[in-house]
Amino acid sequence: MDLADLLRRGRRIRTLGIDDGPFGRGARRDVLVVGAVYSAAEFEGLLSTRVRQDGHNATQRLIEMIAGSKFQPQLHLVMLDGITLGGFNVVDLPRLARAVGIPCVAIMRRQPDREAMRVALQHLSRPRARERIVARAGPVHRAAALCFQACGVDAAVGAQAIRASTRRGNVPECLRAAHLIARGIVIGESGRRA
Amino acid sequence: MDLADLLRRGRRIRTLGIDDGPFGRGARRDVLVVGAVYSAAEFEGLLSTRVRQDGHNATQRLIEMIAGSKFQPQLHLVMLDGITLGGFNVVDLPRLARAVGIPCVAIMRRQPDREAMRVALQHLSRPRARERIVARAGPVHRAAALCFQACGVDAAVGAQAIRASTRRGNVPECLRAAHLIARGIVIGESGRRA
Repeated sequence: MDLADLLRRGRRIRTLGIDDGPFGRGARRDVLVVGAVYSAAEFEGLLSTRVRQDGHNATQRLIEMIAGSKFQPQLHLVMLDGITLGGFNVVDLPRLARAVGIPCVAIMRRQPDREAMRVALQHLSRPRARERIVARAGPVHRAAALCFQACGVDAAVGAQAIRASTRRGNVPECLRAAHLIARGIVIGESGRRA
Repeated sequence: MDLADLLRRGRRIRTLGIDDGPFGRGARRDVLVVGAVYSAAEFEGLLSTRVRQDGHNATQRLIEMIAGSKFQPQLHLVMLDGITLGGFNVVDLPRLARAVGIPCVAIMRRQPDREAMRVALQHLSRPRARERIVARAGPVHRAAALCFQACGVDAAVGAQAIRASTRRGNVPECLRAAHLIARGIVIGESGRRA
């Protein structure tokens, strides 16, 4: 059964929420990335990997993390906190969705400022390649208080899946957990500032 | 309101479940320890620290992790997966409960084999000190399919709190999450063998 059918029937969907841990500016180190698996509001498992700060390997690392994991056949949707990890290590959303065979959405609190991002990318290696990957994620849609880009799923179904995965506030449970876990591991406490 | 009152009134209790990550035998390295904060069945935050494999610093590291964290004033119960972390780094349960001002329980799947533990401790530094700390945790009680030792709380209230924190199977949600998170961070996937 696909995601649209599951949502129509009010079934539980299994989501993977991905977020990165805090990191210091300047030092080009590997940054912790965690993926929290949720079935409805229940925590079911954890994946983790590392991506290079401001590097180019985020898409490849996510593919390796998800493909071959025992969770892959059960996942209905992958949610990212934005289109970048570890600074400006841009995730190629359609490539990720295709490689893991699961719809992927990138969620943002507000409409992305493309021009500000384009300017920021000029200070990094291969800015044009990064811009092309950003553009590939496609149009920005709205779902309640959030914006999102979607690959492998209709915008309407994506919005419905985001709502179905949210229990309190605006952030889907799997993304909230991924954020808290990545901070808690790197800083020692999820609530404390980096 | 204390733990017994909260349970009597059917209120949510906030628990911290602590477990260690997998580690290789032999190499005396620091082992990841995570603490998952749950309010009823909901994940609320994460603490983490490291303890020396087969070392003597587990109690001190847990005290530092909990005391001074923003969660400390809100926690009603600390649950440990057994009385040791990182191999045979024994947790001094009454010292921990006293230092953080929160009742602490150590949960085990079966009745501990004290004689087997005493023999194992002889191969490590300061075996008598470790045995004394093990003994300090007091008598072993039963709660459904689990055994536990308790400090700072009645055995009956401890058993009730363990039941109230459990949603599926026998393991309280906070301990289940701590286990999955520690494995997922160290190995990259919570389901895979070390």
